Amino acid sequence: MKLKKPYVLFLGDVEDDLAAKVAFGIADWRKEDCVGQIQLEGCQTSLDIPKLSLDEAQNMGAKTLIVGVANRGGGISETWHSTLIQAAEMGFDIASGLHQLLISVPRLEEVAHKNNIILHEARIPKGSFPIASAIPRSGRRLLTVGTDCSVGKMYTALAIERELKTREINVDFRATGQTGILINGEGVPIDAVVSDFISGAIEQLCPENDDNHWDIIEGQGSLFHPSFAGVSLGLIHGAQPTDLVLCHEPTRTHMRGLPDMPLPEILECIQSNLEAAYLVNKDAKFSGIAVNSSLISELERFALFDKLKEASGLIVFDPMILGIEEFVDDLLGKAC
Amino acid sequence: MKLKKPYVLFLGDVEDDLAAKVAFGIADWRKEDCVGQIQLEGCQTSLDIPKLSLDEAQNMGAKTLIVGVANRGGGISETWHSTLIQAAEMGFDIASGLHQLLISVPRLEEVAHKNNIILHEARIPKGSFPIASAIPRSGRRLLTVGTDCSVGKMYTALAIERELKTREINVDFRATGQTGILINGEGVPIDAVVSDFISGAIEQLCPENDDNHWDIIEGQGSLFHPSFAGVSLGLIHGAQPTDLVLCHEPTRTHMRGLPDMPLPEILECIQSNLEAAYLVNKDAKFSGIAVNSSLISELERFALFDKLKEASGLIVFDPMILGIEEFVDDLLGKAC
Repeated sequence: MKLKKPYVLFLGDVEDDLAAKVAFGIADWRKEDCVGQIQLEGCQTSLDIPKLSLDEAQNMGAKTLIVGVANRGGGISETWHSTLIQAAEMGFDIASGLHQLLISVPRLEEVAHKNNIILHEARIPKGSFPIASAIPRSGRRLLTVGTDCSVGKMYTALAIERELKTREINVDFRATGQTGILINGEGVPIDAVVSDFISGAIEQLCPENDDNHWDIIEGQGSLFHPSFAGVSLGLIHGAQPTDLVLCHEPTRTHMRGLPDMPLPEILECIQSNLEAAYLVNKDAKFSGIAVNSSLISELERFALFDKLKEASGLIVFDPMILGIEEFVDDLLGKAC
Repeated sequence: MKLKKPYVLFLGDVEDDLAAKVAFGIADWRKEDCVGQIQLEGCQTSLDIPKLSLDEAQNMGAKTLIVGVANRGGGISETWHSTLIQAAEMGFDIASGLHQLLISVPRLEEVAHKNNIILHEARIPKGSFPIASAIPRSGRRLLTVGTDCSVGKMYTALAIERELKTREINVDFRATGQTGILINGEGVPIDAVVSDFISGAIEQLCPENDDNHWDIIEGQGSLFHPSFAGVSLGLIHGAQPTDLVLCHEPTRTHMRGLPDMPLPEILECIQSNLEAAYLVNKDAKFSGIAVNSSLISELERFALFDKLKEASGLIVFDPMILGIEEFVDDLLGKAC
């Protein structure tokens, strides 16, 4: 799966920003690949890119319409059907990460076939995967891991990729979830891969590379989230990381979705992830702690960052609020 | 998936004992459920149960024909086709754990449908699975874990189940691999479950139960095998074990299939499995070490067992050679 650029982002008639999370992610991280957005009547949100019709999008060269919606339940609204059919008839590829598949839209698969366009379902793993070999491989691989689910692993990885690109470092973001895949145009939805192949699919995603090439790999779940820790561990082993970044959201009172499950201690979490990584790379090390501090005050932020820095000896940063220059300086300095 | 009893075991024309591993397993552990075996011309192995034709098997009440073969490549030989078709025509259900599916045999699916019989593919997970909740649940759950793959986790679990049954303890063996499923008549092929549901599928397999009920759960892989450790970890979290048994094969020189990957130290392996189990049950504990000592001398065996016992403080036993009475005495004593 690799999406043809440039894109037009379809918002449908979503009710708020949150439901358009995917579109916001693409516009945040790949604005250069987006010609504009398509909204239907009743759409309650808007991106900072041109509002277009399908005709205008085509005239501007858009090749793929991406459904930028991540609504509750993951359904495809009937109000979108005619636009999706029309897009297929006009020759756009269509990509979606929704739970309900594009092929469930009446006639869409048939129209797609007739017009020789591709329906990309970002939730469905494509191709076949090997069993992991765990053979040591060259290249730098930075993996973001988390104290919990949904703490900023994808955004941290994308921020690091962007900063490395700015410095003209040879770098690839490696997406492992639906949203990351739609942002990046390719990747593996690791939570949908058959469990025997978790590590093998990740090895395939970030193969050996030049010594000065960086893969920035989006982690999933947390070793301390008992619903998904198997995925997290398989991902670590497949990634064979040279560098790890711990992502953390300080206002969580319990693991996501599990009211009785406490958060891990930061140092315990670092230690467990390191031990997991050591199995495939004895030289793996943590390079920093990325804190999503958007929900705490500036005063709390500095106090927390100082505390974490002192306890861990690592650089502590918020990639979205305070930037990551210092972190990347340190990362590249140590890698020399 | 639950196989109808009794069974007739189909050996086809396999060339040696190893290729009939599944049939030997069923005859070892569920002989009371087997009316006999069916061999084709050229079959080079035999079980200690009656040799039958399909007609004789039917007259003896057999309801399911189990393909007892685990050959290299997992293929269904063309020489078996006519027997499988005939069995379906006669009204036998057919079960197989081979990689090549029963439905790939020409006409078999159609004949099965017409005769209203079930083709059980033990490699394919059936039904839908929840995301794991990790909510504490009642009942005793003993999980076998390993220093490596294929070290005796299934046989150890089945031996413990048998001994508990002998003592009239309320017990269920919970199968998580193809062979275990065919032996037990039900279970979940966890390595074929989509990774998001590893732990949830295991929670469903061994739900809460009476305080004096034991689930003996077949583990998979090893936390120290980087190809499969994600499956092993998800299985531990889903099992929420009260008791763990470490299974070990002392002649391994490296992790199975990975020549450069050393075996873990026994105590390190115990500690890692305990830490994984603690996430879902703070009271989890190891109850013993099961050593597959069939490939070492008696002298080596006693020296090794003494060494492991002294290092770990646990009961060390070989369930197949020395029996497990002492282990089960201790297990039940501690559980009181």
